[in-house]
Amino acid sequence: MRLDVTLAEAYNNAPYPLNGHGQRNVHVLKEAFETIDGDVDSDVYGSGPVIEQFQNRFAQLLGKPASVFFPSGTMAQQIALRIWSDAAGSKKVAYHPLCHLEIHEQDGLKELHHLEPILLADTTRPVLLSDVLGMPDDVACLLLELPQREIGGQLPDYAELEAISAHCRAKGIKLHLDGARLFEVTPYYGRSAEEICSLFDSVYVSVYKGLGGIAGAVLAGEYDFAEESKVWKRRHGGDLISLYPYFLSAEYYLDLRLPRMADYYEGAVELAALYNGCHPAIRTVPQVPVSNMFHVHAERPKEELEPILIEITQQTGIGFTHVLRPKTGTVCYYEVSIGDRYAELPQEKVREAFRQLGERLSSSNRQ
Amino acid sequence: MRLDVTLAEAYNNAPYPLNGHGQRNVHVLKEAFETIDGDVDSDVYGSGPVIEQFQNRFAQLLGKPASVFFPSGTMAQQIALRIWSDAAGSKKVAYHPLCHLEIHEQDGLKELHHLEPILLADTTRPVLLSDVLGMPDDVACLLLELPQREIGGQLPDYAELEAISAHCRAKGIKLHLDGARLFEVTPYYGRSAEEICSLFDSVYVSVYKGLGGIAGAVLAGEYDFAEESKVWKRRHGGDLISLYPYFLSAEYYLDLRLPRMADYYEGAVELAALYNGCHPAIRTVPQVPVSNMFHVHAERPKEELEPILIEITQQTGIGFTHVLRPKTGTVCYYEVSIGDRYAELPQEKVREAFRQLGERLSSSNRQ
Repeated sequence: MRLDVTLAEAYNNAPYPLNGHGQRNVHVLKEAFETIDGDVDSDVYGSGPVIEQFQNRFAQLLGKPASVFFPSGTMAQQIALRIWSDAAGSKKVAYHPLCHLEIHEQDGLKELHHLEPILLADTTRPVLLSDVLGMPDDVACLLLELPQREIGGQLPDYAELEAISAHCRAKGIKLHLDGARLFEVTPYYGRSAEEICSLFDSVYVSVYKGLGGIAGAVLAGEYDFAEESKVWKRRHGGDLISLYPYFLSAEYYLDLRLPRMADYYEGAVELAALYNGCHPAIRTVPQVPVSNMFHVHAERPKEELEPILIEITQQTGIGFTHVLRPKTGTVCYYEVSIGDRYAELPQEKVREAFRQLGERLSSSNRQ
Repeated sequence: MRLDVTLAEAYNNAPYPLNGHGQRNVHVLKEAFETIDGDVDSDVYGSGPVIEQFQNRFAQLLGKPASVFFPSGTMAQQIALRIWSDAAGSKKVAYHPLCHLEIHEQDGLKELHHLEPILLADTTRPVLLSDVLGMPDDVACLLLELPQREIGGQLPDYAELEAISAHCRAKGIKLHLDGARLFEVTPYYGRSAEEICSLFDSVYVSVYKGLGGIAGAVLAGEYDFAEESKVWKRRHGGDLISLYPYFLSAEYYLDLRLPRMADYYEGAVELAALYNGCHPAIRTVPQVPVSNMFHVHAERPKEELEPILIEITQQTGIGFTHVLRPKTGTVCYYEVSIGDRYAELPQEKVREAFRQLGERLSSSNRQ
């Protein structure tokens, strides 16, 4: 056993990682394209049979008249908010303080589109109707992220969502869905993607989260909205001559993984229970997952938990995470998201790893 | 022989098309990735060994300290001009009236970056020193496209280019190269890409023109410029989790085709001579190509030339073009660009096709 490895190295070399579908490597592309005929013509600047067929399929899946494939969700969502802002003649848009646009996009929404976000709710919970009722009158668009990734993948109750949607419709506020992980919440809500999307005016979904494609995003809505989004896609530099490496592989993985979303969700519920049961210093957020993901919070400094996880991974082969993030000086956390790997794990090794984790946390003399 | 086909259909079904490398289809991806190990890890948001190695190679090829891979030239060039505009504190940038940013990008430069282009030269010739001397004093950056695609791929003399560069350096005006087809002009100039790039502060090259990759672009310059461009790449939504489908295939085709640039250029000179010699109603712009491309101008309305080209293609198998564009009511034109296909053509069929073209134009009773 080597203790001079990093957590990332230990995780990446572990025979049984708990998270995800597999390595992000060239096999992901090769596997998808093995099934695709080389004579299939490329899309050309957003046109051509293959991209149109893909977009039609997603439009149907999301219950919208049209969808457009984008290289990234960053591009798709800025554009959605810009369109709604222009339509309303107001630069104000509203979202959660931990929205992707607020914390991961180098302020593209502000620097490129000069939109003015209103931050709703706080960093421990999702946006609720009470937050929405307190918004200024001239908000053009409200963005809701389902599930809210940065807080462990939390969701509002479905009735809360319906109430927000009804309020926005009544007030003429456009409602946009950041559904990067939309398919992943369908088992918990017990609703189809189409049914959930019917509450929203526009919808973004990612093709490389639960679906496990290479990269890319779909933006769906009314026909005019989709057409306008193509103009902005060209302006952003996203209207590539060929996007087929992304959407053809996305379609392959959609066929493979859309039917598995319930398995991923159930796996997350099961795994969260193992975390919550192993030691009082460990808890998951949410306590019972509502999608394929959750966060693990540990009442231990990162520096203390890291060698423990490395050692258990090396002894049992079970990989917990590739990275720990400090939350406070004494609490660290990491994200878990369940994919294809989880179902293939040897259950006795998983249980042994969690037994060791509980034991090591007890002997590390806190709590 | 069927005469009810369109020009595009005739061209696409022709056994011997004159232009390009081949069909834009999934084979382009499959051929490149056959040579790449599936265990190679993806790049992750612009980092990782494969993208860094690619970017270092292009930096070296272009003689700049750093390069960044972008999904598109549209994105890369808007960002280059924005960086230079911010640095100078001036929104004015200068370029040719038929610059890609002016006519093909839905005004992204204006709508997203609020830059104010000054148009230089006219639509028949490239930008010259005399145009540059007449610019307002507060222009932040001058963009030169080499070769100027929309006018048949024309170039200024190299001495003219050196004089423009010296003037811009003296005046503190940044000089940006739209080198979408930079490698394609190296044989005519008799200079390396690196030598040409040394005249410029920043450089964009495409990986899917003469190189024939799937899509994508490289932006090169000083280290700080490259780092700043990555921030804007994130803002534009171009910092994808995985760009390897584009840059790994680009590298494969770079190895294959960079050594062939002189062949493509010589092919263009030879083919232009065939056009110019076949009938007085046909001429090429430029008359003698200076890269792998040129335009064909025909003193015939599009509606008159189209059935002639379809018929000759069906009789000889030689495909001239997939589209004719009207220039005036009595003149139409099309673009020719030489790639791998040209060297493989049966020369006797090429000559027969041009003999028939001259004959049909004579009997079509004009000139």
